[in-house]
Amino acid sequence: MDMEHRIRICEVGPRDGLQNEPVPISTAQKRLLISGLIEAGLDNIEVTSFVNPKLVPQMADSRQVMARTLAKVHDPDIRLTALVLNERGYDYALESGATSLATLVMVSNTLSERNSNMSRDESLALTRILLRRAREDGIWMRVYIGTAWTCPYEGDIPPNVTIGVAEAVWDMRPDELAIADTIGHAQPLEVGYLMKDLVTRFGRKKLAIHLHDTQALGLVNAAAAIHAGVRLFDASVGGLGGCPFAPGAAGNLATEDLVFMAHKMGFETGVDLAKLWKVVQLAKGFVNRPIGGRIWPWWEAHARPASELPGIT
Amino acid sequence: MDMEHRIRICEVGPRDGLQNEPVPISTAQKRLLISGLIEAGLDNIEVTSFVNPKLVPQMADSRQVMARTLAKVHDPDIRLTALVLNERGYDYALESGATSLATLVMVSNTLSERNSNMSRDESLALTRILLRRAREDGIWMRVYIGTAWTCPYEGDIPPNVTIGVAEAVWDMRPDELAIADTIGHAQPLEVGYLMKDLVTRFGRKKLAIHLHDTQALGLVNAAAAIHAGVRLFDASVGGLGGCPFAPGAAGNLATEDLVFMAHKMGFETGVDLAKLWKVVQLAKGFVNRPIGGRIWPWWEAHARPASELPGIT
Repeated sequence: MDMEHRIRICEVGPRDGLQNEPVPISTAQKRLLISGLIEAGLDNIEVTSFVNPKLVPQMADSRQVMARTLAKVHDPDIRLTALVLNERGYDYALESGATSLATLVMVSNTLSERNSNMSRDESLALTRILLRRAREDGIWMRVYIGTAWTCPYEGDIPPNVTIGVAEAVWDMRPDELAIADTIGHAQPLEVGYLMKDLVTRFGRKKLAIHLHDTQALGLVNAAAAIHAGVRLFDASVGGLGGCPFAPGAAGNLATEDLVFMAHKMGFETGVDLAKLWKVVQLAKGFVNRPIGGRIWPWWEAHARPASELPGIT
Repeated sequence: MDMEHRIRICEVGPRDGLQNEPVPISTAQKRLLISGLIEAGLDNIEVTSFVNPKLVPQMADSRQVMARTLAKVHDPDIRLTALVLNERGYDYALESGATSLATLVMVSNTLSERNSNMSRDESLALTRILLRRAREDGIWMRVYIGTAWTCPYEGDIPPNVTIGVAEAVWDMRPDELAIADTIGHAQPLEVGYLMKDLVTRFGRKKLAIHLHDTQALGLVNAAAAIHAGVRLFDASVGGLGGCPFAPGAAGNLATEDLVFMAHKMGFETGVDLAKLWKVVQLAKGFVNRPIGGRIWPWWEAHARPASELPGIT
């Protein structure tokens, strides 16, 4: 398919979406969620993270989620990714059979220290090690560039600093670079500015943007990124998510909002909104609170009456 | 103030926002709403419409609203506008003391016929008459170009048709041209395309955009219009509104969402969000249903705790 007409989506609901949920979600529920997402057409899913279960109890079953999901999914075109933040997590992920990983560098030195007890430079050195091991092991690996625009402690991050960190990581040859508005405080002019610059530097194939909807600007920033040439977006079903270590971060860009807008703009996504609606209903039952993107009220009333939707299976 | 750094807002809540509300709003409530809006810094307000009270009962008190509001507001920099759709409405508006008016042409011939029993050409001829009278009477007058992108009956409107109607009206020398996404089905690529073209033709000073948030794309389309050079936006406090004669139209772009985003992007609006919050609470009490822009949940929790806000006066 012509890339100009396709928006690719990396679904981060099962990982970024759930990690902050106070209600424990069982391994079986996570697997139902993941198979529902695949059923809806999402072929690129971050399913779990191999991190300290004391800090992120919701991800304590990462081995089971990874191994059991892989055992069920045989389509080589479906990518199932796990987040790792150190070599130990990397080892565990590989033991569980993972072949796609993600790791993270914070542009903000302050948040890097608070989040991982590493300076930004130490985090960059670790990323270099992880990427070298991944290449040797035949593992696909993306790198998140966190706090690309704003940090809860440092405030606005100057674009040249983010560009510098992105270039340093790019030189380590990751398979993908995901520029993250970690706390969801970015605005469209700065999103457009930075992403246009990065698309020019790196091309659009390996460049993703990871947005949060904290200030109701998730879709606005997504549209600005599309305008800047970005064609690969992280999103979370139902708008689940947030960052447990970054105050003020709540709600990823909802997959359904991104899909709806992308389709309206004439892009293909491969995602079926009616099937995604069912996954949102499923997730709602698991987290036991109202969730769902901004598009549902209109969609349920006009595009596809709820009465016509099949029940949750 | 440098226009590049200012987003001007035409507040349409008391007219477009209320016209479709099933709960009757009293003249006194409307005047409270209007004074709250002025207090919050909005200096350009569409306060009522002189239309058939049988079709739009909520606007039956237009004479009182116009006359009593004018009697209270002595600041010559505050513009109070009334919508008129024919010469009779024009006469009534002038009798009530109005000096600023708006009128409407639908690009969609079908909606024009259904809405006003006039073809688009008849509507253009009437607009020419109204604008000629306005010039003779020293009345300021804006013209809405309705269904600029989509019509509930005709579907997508080709941009060349909208451009043709806009040029025909522009040649009649209106004081302002407001390009309206009447049913809120436009998407950012087509909003950006058309508005960039119109900014090039007409400049930005007299060109407004009127957006609805029906499909949760109100802010996205506003950002696309800002990107295209538009600096004058219609918006409705609390996201009140819709078009009673256009199926599927619900909710104008909320003034608070536009103000919040504009401020984040570095534009000035002259509007105080804390004061606007109070007006939303006031309007909520009048319409007796939940209203409010998409920004409030974050804003109330983080930007300004509700406990710190003064009570409604």
